[in-house]
Amino acid sequence: MSRWEPNARERLERAALELYGERGFDRTTVAEIARRAGLTERTFFRHFADKREVLFWGETALQDVCVNAVAAAPAGAAPIDALAAALDAAAALLEERRAFARQRQAVVAGNARLQERELIKLASLSAALAAALRGRGVTEPAASLTAEAGMVVFKIAFARWVDEPGQGGLAPLIRDSLAQLRAVAGGEDGRWEGRRDHSYEGRRDHS
Amino acid sequence: MSRWEPNARERLERAALELYGERGFDRTTVAEIARRAGLTERTFFRHFADKREVLFWGETALQDVCVNAVAAAPAGAAPIDALAAALDAAAALLEERRAFARQRQAVVAGNARLQERELIKLASLSAALAAALRGRGVTEPAASLTAEAGMVVFKIAFARWVDEPGQGGLAPLIRDSLAQLRAVAGGEDGRWEGRRDHSYEGRRDHS
Repeated sequence: MSRWEPNARERLERAALELYGERGFDRTTVAEIARRAGLTERTFFRHFADKREVLFWGETALQDVCVNAVAAAPAGAAPIDALAAALDAAAALLEERRAFARQRQAVVAGNARLQERELIKLASLSAALAAALRGRGVTEPAASLTAEAGMVVFKIAFARWVDEPGQGGLAPLIRDSLAQLRAVAGGEDGRWEGRRDHSYEGRRDHS
Repeated sequence: MSRWEPNARERLERAALELYGERGFDRTTVAEIARRAGLTERTFFRHFADKREVLFWGETALQDVCVNAVAAAPAGAAPIDALAAALDAAAALLEERRAFARQRQAVVAGNARLQERELIKLASLSAALAAALRGRGVTEPAASLTAEAGMVVFKIAFARWVDEPGQGGLAPLIRDSLAQLRAVAGGEDGRWEGRRDHSYEGRRDHS
């Protein structure tokens, strides 16, 4: 791969993720990222403001996609369904980047400052979604509650998508997570794996 | 109030909150807090590790109370009901400190670093509650989903309790927030204030 590649951003991103994984985010410099990518620091700064932005550059696009999906949901859609449409749109955007998402997650999980940044990012996405719901006429606190519940659904599904390669795509995991939220909120007992055994036990007296 | 007061912790806390509110958290020093409280810096450091801990010292007690309430919930209780018991216990602990909570919230909201610390605190409480639910036999992802949903219910209720003095106690606001989460997850339309008008509109053709 010594030939000239036009995709500088992808090369820088890949080099950065490798280095963050190998030696930690704090101990990696922009100079090293550029060197590993076979590019100059100047090229790095044409694409990213700093080494942290390599991990967070997609968040504006993600937020726009989600907010637009809420706004575009059918007029009669319940807030949770408008939110589900937003999460589906987010899933479509992220699905292509699972390998990146997994590497990135490991880097963020290993660094308290990055974790805080990640929580801020989710809080800001939640606030934007609540505003989009209010734009559809949903009043408070329902708008914030729906947006926050949507973030929970997304976080749980995203963690499974990143951690468990066998679990399939992000969109079905989000739908599953949403179904489980409905079950949980409705007071089901949450012993998902054990449910069959549990009901069997309850019928012991009939056997 | 020039007489000697034995409640040094409360005096320091009150002085700190006043100063954080007046000149901002970053521009307040421990020396100033001690002076305003009429105490020494040495006394301050007997009660708090630093000026940030004045805002966060109760979190271990809060987490313990919540985790114990989950563990103590009746054996047959659904996860969401065990979680509701935890939030009730948290409400009882916080109810006495509403004036402090309101002042504290304003300080935290005005400072990005403190906001991040607050998000970390909530994430850690959520993780502890998920672990307590797993201890009751709730499997993943239901345990995390329930704990996170509980945090959402708590956050929304807490914000109303702090922002809207007319809304009454924290415990009823938590129950209301939980009921709204159930409604939202169940696909209700969330136009709470407008619900009557909305259903009227739907029946226009019968009039």
